[in-house]
Amino acid sequence: MRIVVLAGGIGGARFLRGLKEAVGPQADITVIGNTGDDIHLFGLKVCPDLDTVMYTLGGGIHEEQGWGRADESFAVKDELKAYGVGPEWFGLGDKDFATHIVRTQMLGAGYPLSAVTEALCARWQPGVRLIPMSDDRVETHVLIEQDGAKKAVHFQEFWVKLHATVPAEAIIPVGAESARPAPGVLEAIAEADVILFPPSNPVVSVGTILAVPGIRAAVAAAAAPVVGLSPIIGAAPVRGMADKVLAAVGVETSAAAVARHYGSRAAAPGDASGGGGQGAGLLDGWLVDEADADAVAEVEAAGIPCRAVPLWMTDVERTAAMARAALELAEAVRRA
Amino acid sequence: MRIVVLAGGIGGARFLRGLKEAVGPQADITVIGNTGDDIHLFGLKVCPDLDTVMYTLGGGIHEEQGWGRADESFAVKDELKAYGVGPEWFGLGDKDFATHIVRTQMLGAGYPLSAVTEALCARWQPGVRLIPMSDDRVETHVLIEQDGAKKAVHFQEFWVKLHATVPAEAIIPVGAESARPAPGVLEAIAEADVILFPPSNPVVSVGTILAVPGIRAAVAAAAAPVVGLSPIIGAAPVRGMADKVLAAVGVETSAAAVARHYGSRAAAPGDASGGGGQGAGLLDGWLVDEADADAVAEVEAAGIPCRAVPLWMTDVERTAAMARAALELAEAVRRA
Repeated sequence: MRIVVLAGGIGGARFLRGLKEAVGPQADITVIGNTGDDIHLFGLKVCPDLDTVMYTLGGGIHEEQGWGRADESFAVKDELKAYGVGPEWFGLGDKDFATHIVRTQMLGAGYPLSAVTEALCARWQPGVRLIPMSDDRVETHVLIEQDGAKKAVHFQEFWVKLHATVPAEAIIPVGAESARPAPGVLEAIAEADVILFPPSNPVVSVGTILAVPGIRAAVAAAAAPVVGLSPIIGAAPVRGMADKVLAAVGVETSAAAVARHYGSRAAAPGDASGGGGQGAGLLDGWLVDEADADAVAEVEAAGIPCRAVPLWMTDVERTAAMARAALELAEAVRRA
Repeated sequence: MRIVVLAGGIGGARFLRGLKEAVGPQADITVIGNTGDDIHLFGLKVCPDLDTVMYTLGGGIHEEQGWGRADESFAVKDELKAYGVGPEWFGLGDKDFATHIVRTQMLGAGYPLSAVTEALCARWQPGVRLIPMSDDRVETHVLIEQDGAKKAVHFQEFWVKLHATVPAEAIIPVGAESARPAPGVLEAIAEADVILFPPSNPVVSVGTILAVPGIRAAVAAAAAPVVGLSPIIGAAPVRGMADKVLAAVGVETSAAAVARHYGSRAAAPGDASGGGGQGAGLLDGWLVDEADADAVAEVEAAGIPCRAVPLWMTDVERTAAMARAALELAEAVRRA
């Protein structure tokens, strides 16, 4: 079974670990990773979401933290501080620095990010094919108001430095409109048996991937069922601060609202085209947490088959159960 | 007193520490540093000689080793190895990596190496003005024979990887002929009260600095006396493998032969020009170790005033005594 997952960082990576457990080593999983969070720090190219997926599936992740390396040290960071070179708010450990050094060196030598990611994965053996959404530079910026003036800051500055404590007025994937999907992205989507949206941030993770021209249309046109898992439980994000960026795109922080935001792939009332194609909705199915069982009817009323199952990724086994539920829903809607 | 020192790495740095002790904080010391040893590793610009001077005078050096940082860790290097990214033979520690990251970032932003070096020194406060010989790239290559074929390798590969175990057939400062002295280099030489050649490698350290067009002529034409200290004691280098590269330029490994290699600034017999200027010798004085007292007459016969004093830099006080002896010889030849 060929499974394609559009993944952000921590949520996507943890879901993927459960998915691998659920489907076993025979499944063919392609992960299209968000690169809108990428940032140049100290002259080095840092790809937080790709690395979180790679480290998590490759056994190198700092488990409690969810990002960065286990057993990390911070000699380089301390030295950079001694040189007065910032920013200090982005915590790069020594082991993590090595990844960024290798990546930057390969990019400097002319390799595209997709080839670099493949080379890094040759060490980590994540058990999935990890492809960045694009080899072109896309940077998610956030429009905020500071000292009375509007200002666009890098997503990492909004998220990590400001801890999303100021309202996000708009989310701008800078460069997305001229970015091309990385080699293999559109093919994987077209050839998939199932496409999954893990409980990643629908705006700055999955949303940024979908903002690369061609990817949204490919998902909408795919033969495979598309099933998503809600990153919102109750009225709050499972983790992170998805509510802060949902507000910026006018979406309520609820499992049903996120489903409606992605939209139904089924023909909308009065839509004679029968669904599919650019501009149509994306979902054939949606999973909400048991706590949001009330939302099932609302999601289904929007044309999206929906089930309520436990969605807390507290351990690999429970996460595997979530992945099985998503695959079962995909089979159900495929037959329907 | 304005003192200019043409310095390589470990020998130059240790001599400078003694010189600072000898002249006190009021003296104005400009160090023109060799950059022919510079190398790009892992996409980062590494300047071993500049860093050795900076770390030694700034209190960050690994004392026993003579290069690199004290209390160093190697997490980045271990990770690079795990990625299969080499070379492994050049030992960069985590603290040292930070220096190269800052340097590379600044160079990438368009600052010349001299400005970058000044910025790094703002932290280290070496107590001297450290200027790279050139902002242009010069790389010392060594011609060797390997598997029956001639091959030019980077000096660091010859020195650190091969441990100078194969004969050096030629020393080639690649790029030197089109390099320009860094801002301030020629001015410092012209305005100096004393110019010193520390016991650095006469071929790949001081020799490379002199290979930058304009620097040799400036030293030869300088108003100040030029005094050198022999890096050879007996028939062996004080440290390092200077003998290996002296052979490549046809110079015997002896204190007198190195003095003759630099040459006398006094008018050579039959030279009606009176000395000075391009092509002339460089030395007004030379210090040899007490063990080489026999060589004094030979050096003086070559037109270079010479004294025998202890030249082992075993501690700062003995090194300061060497510096005082060099300055005394400079005064003696200035008066003469």
